Amino acid sequence: MKQQVIAAACTLALGAAGVALAQQKPEDVIKYRQSALFIVGQNFGPLAAMVQGKMPYNRDAAVRHAEIAAYVMKLPWHSFGPGTDQGGNTKAKPGIWENPDDFKSKRDAMLAEIEKLPAAAGNLDSLKAQVGATGKACKACHDEYRAK
Amino acid sequence: MKQQVIAAACTLALGAAGVALAQQKPEDVIKYRQSALFIVGQNFGPLAAMVQGKMPYNRDAAVRHAEIAAYVMKLPWHSFGPGTDQGGNTKAKPGIWENPDDFKSKRDAMLAEIEKLPAAAGNLDSLKAQVGATGKACKACHDEYRAK
Repeated sequence: MKQQVIAAACTLALGAAGVALAQQKPEDVIKYRQSALFIVGQNFGPLAAMVQGKMPYNRDAAVRHAEIAAYVMKLPWHSFGPGTDQGGNTKAKPGIWENPDDFKSKRDAMLAEIEKLPAAAGNLDSLKAQVGATGKACKACHDEYRAK
Repeated sequence: MKQQVIAAACTLALGAAGVALAQQKPEDVIKYRQSALFIVGQNFGPLAAMVQGKMPYNRDAAVRHAEIAAYVMKLPWHSFGPGTDQGGNTKAKPGIWENPDDFKSKRDAMLAEIEKLPAAAGNLDSLKAQVGATGKACKACHDEYRAK
């Protein structure tokens, strides 16, 4: 099983900025990706609230949230290897492993958008546009590959 | 409760690089710090394994693990506010809120060590020394403030 996870890490890392955690147990691999995505969500949430007028826009906080979200979003892409499709309380759908090219394509599209967030966060108009584009890219993957 | 969390964030952030997530629920605050510390642990683990000879030393991987650990370690220090001493499956001990100055001092000592990890990871001898110093600083806080 450990060998599978290592192989999966090598296969799925594919240029994303994550690093293979070769000694991770499958349940820790799942927890790793969930932890990273939770942190991203908690930082994206205030950005969405700011652009929706539910929270006052604060430039410094917005930039910092965007930086954290963009950085942490790069981490967990080695964490979707074979052997991690079940376990823990994963919401990952089988399609991730059945259609790896499409999953990777949606991942790359999302990373391309979230990387633009820190620069966009410097003013509310550009933040609004980029939160929209990033949220759309997140949703494209969630709709297809994350169970409700 | 939300106001408490906001106040706590302002009180405990204290120059650390985290950012107050003002709209977080207490259970999400706890999950945020646990997620960050889990990611740090998963990246610190391979470094410890490398210096202990349990895993081959790989310079690029070591530097990347160290960078991730150092970055993510800065995130969750606003997440120990009042109202987050209980809930979820937190192992945080009451001393964190009873002795905030000591907790902050141990946090700062640990951050000072983990920030040196990326540069130290460039060769095995310096990595060994810095993994030791960082692990000691982590342990000082865990011994005092984290339940078994």
